[in-house]
Amino acid sequence: MSTGMMKIGVCGVGTVGMATLNILRGQADSIASRAGRSLSVTHVGARTQYSEHDYGAARVSQDVMDVARDPEVDILVELIGGTGVAFDLIKLAIAEGKHVVTANKALIAEHGNELIALAESAGVQIRFEASVAGGIPIIKTLREAMAANQVSEVAGIINGTGNFILTEMSTKGREFEDVLAEAQALGYAEVDPTFDIDGTDAAHKLVILASLAFGIPLSIDAPFKQGINAITPADLEYAATMGYRVKHLGIARQRAEGIEMRVHPTLIPESKQLASVDGVLNAVMIAGSEVGELVLIGPGAGGAATASSVCADLIDIARQPRSSSLALGTPVASLVAQPTIPNGEIASEWYVRLTAADQPGVMSDITHILAAHDISIESLVQQPPAAGEDQVPIVLLTHLAREAVMNEALQEIMDLEGVQPDSALIRVEGFDH
Amino acid sequence: MSTGMMKIGVCGVGTVGMATLNILRGQADSIASRAGRSLSVTHVGARTQYSEHDYGAARVSQDVMDVARDPEVDILVELIGGTGVAFDLIKLAIAEGKHVVTANKALIAEHGNELIALAESAGVQIRFEASVAGGIPIIKTLREAMAANQVSEVAGIINGTGNFILTEMSTKGREFEDVLAEAQALGYAEVDPTFDIDGTDAAHKLVILASLAFGIPLSIDAPFKQGINAITPADLEYAATMGYRVKHLGIARQRAEGIEMRVHPTLIPESKQLASVDGVLNAVMIAGSEVGELVLIGPGAGGAATASSVCADLIDIARQPRSSSLALGTPVASLVAQPTIPNGEIASEWYVRLTAADQPGVMSDITHILAAHDISIESLVQQPPAAGEDQVPIVLLTHLAREAVMNEALQEIMDLEGVQPDSALIRVEGFDH
Repeated sequence: MSTGMMKIGVCGVGTVGMATLNILRGQADSIASRAGRSLSVTHVGARTQYSEHDYGAARVSQDVMDVARDPEVDILVELIGGTGVAFDLIKLAIAEGKHVVTANKALIAEHGNELIALAESAGVQIRFEASVAGGIPIIKTLREAMAANQVSEVAGIINGTGNFILTEMSTKGREFEDVLAEAQALGYAEVDPTFDIDGTDAAHKLVILASLAFGIPLSIDAPFKQGINAITPADLEYAATMGYRVKHLGIARQRAEGIEMRVHPTLIPESKQLASVDGVLNAVMIAGSEVGELVLIGPGAGGAATASSVCADLIDIARQPRSSSLALGTPVASLVAQPTIPNGEIASEWYVRLTAADQPGVMSDITHILAAHDISIESLVQQPPAAGEDQVPIVLLTHLAREAVMNEALQEIMDLEGVQPDSALIRVEGFDH
Repeated sequence: MSTGMMKIGVCGVGTVGMATLNILRGQADSIASRAGRSLSVTHVGARTQYSEHDYGAARVSQDVMDVARDPEVDILVELIGGTGVAFDLIKLAIAEGKHVVTANKALIAEHGNELIALAESAGVQIRFEASVAGGIPIIKTLREAMAANQVSEVAGIINGTGNFILTEMSTKGREFEDVLAEAQALGYAEVDPTFDIDGTDAAHKLVILASLAFGIPLSIDAPFKQGINAITPADLEYAATMGYRVKHLGIARQRAEGIEMRVHPTLIPESKQLASVDGVLNAVMIAGSEVGELVLIGPGAGGAATASSVCADLIDIARQPRSSSLALGTPVASLVAQPTIPNGEIASEWYVRLTAADQPGVMSDITHILAAHDISIESLVQQPPAAGEDQVPIVLLTHLAREAVMNEALQEIMDLEGVQPDSALIRVEGFDH
């Protein structure tokens, strides 16, 4: 079965790129045994500042396009990131008849439909296991292991930086800004952590998961996004008191009317597996018609863990280079778009935190407004005022209500005399199927 | 890429067999889209008593060998179980040039080396994702997703019946025999539950996992086996008090001297993901050189969940029927045997429960014996005697000690005057890498 050596061009030699080179060199023999042929990096695309690294016998080009044009290269690995150079590079590599492996979630979420269609036409494969949840084989699981299932839901902790921050805030009562600074110092968060904090990174990953799960085209604009920056240590503490943990989740769910896709902080019961996934770990739950619920937990980032997925893609290609790509499980032309359900229309239970004057009538007014909007209260905790304070926190959990209705009700409550402008509104997901 | 229809023969139409037929019929269109061709069951091997089932247009044979001989059949699915007829059937199917999919862990663990070698020679594939942990894609994950890793450990809850029994005993304080009877009534446990209870079923699965993890031949006799029947509700309760849960684990670990392979009840810290996997769920942790730790959790049994894995294997074959099998990740000839470390030589921390007379000197004698064997005590709890009792339970956790040494020490302790013959010795695994 095995045939000649597979020649690999690696573009981008940051943390993941160097880890990929190290694995392909360090595990060369066992990889050759598993792939049925040897995999050799023959060309590296590296900017000047990385020229001092040891690339073995590989040719080194500062212009990454030279790697895509190299007629010797069978598979191009794109680890540059972003949607500029990386996009042009992959298009060129496909046009040159090369297979492509990438860890680039932003690029796949935004331009994946086009790139996969190009790969299909060219008869080459494009694979991107490392683009979602780092070392967790979530794409392979959705695409292959669950191929006989209708998937009804994918939900998970798919941004390690955000989960690290929430875990630190939750377990140590630390403030958001304080933990973010530490995450940057530890190298978990980017120098510009915007995409980690505002949910963009998780939304990119959710777009890819939803396409695989529901057979829909990649839809970069579909997810509703809310970041973790509005979460306070007090909310985490109240949630814990009521038996919940707060996690920043990406959730994609098949409904009769279309697809829910949303990224936001979420209260989940502490008994659920996802609730105990802490720190930089990622975890994804998949619900399938046949298998029921699967949960996969593992490192969502880190050079070696991400490179493990890059190399798994390389080995898959080397095992069956003439297989069709089916990057999203089916040919791109078979994907069927579905409407995205607007976030305002999505019903869930809710966590509401208010601060109100400790005086007669306020609670009555609040519950009256909720009742007028047909929002029923599951539990309500009014804390006693702190010494010297005349304002008290009120925390309540509601039964199912649409977000639009919750927002209307909350606005009316905030307009009440005696209610402070400080409030929190967080979805609760029980994951009870 | 897609070509003609793939014709499937299904032998064995019990719970998993019928679920497989239902999925292939009910999901025919989406499976065809994902497989690149349609999959159709054209021949069913079913004993007389199942003749009333609806097999659609499929031919039905009471002699399953007729399915293996049917020249129309491309893939034979073996869901009969056991190592008798199933073994002959698969050998015949391979000789007839058919791919094989099976859920039969006993057969793969015992005869897998031979069957896989036969399949390699015949140029057909043999796949058995459903043989371990039901709907969890643990074989695909080890074989493909972790292909760039050196695996150092696989450990998990791989017998749902046993986990259900331990969970019920632990959460409700019920006795073993009582829960077993319920498990049988619920259909979780077989009419003859011996293999679930004594660890044989888990050992079969562990043999398969260890082969995939470490690149060793399948070695049916390698695992040390201990069942769950000796566990008492009291042990579960003492363990919980000390922050541990008791799970029946299969553990395979790469050591410098060889491979540890063992199936036994184990105390694990309640903070570990595996500790909170309850009921009939299965969970497997894999530690890899690059990815670190992955944990996969899901249904380990049940018709539809197991059939989900059977169908995933069928779709994988249909996608790439000319790919080589690599059932264990590498060709069978590349597997390299390693010594199995005898259980007596394996060191771990230990949970010890004794019952002793509440009189001066006994505790001193016990601790003296432990010290003489170089066994150091991590913590020790002596319970006050129950009203009217003069015997007290003594529970202690030790630091690392080899099993052989523990057994020697325990034997000496049991010979002491004032120590009762009733005792428990259970390994503690912290999973601290």
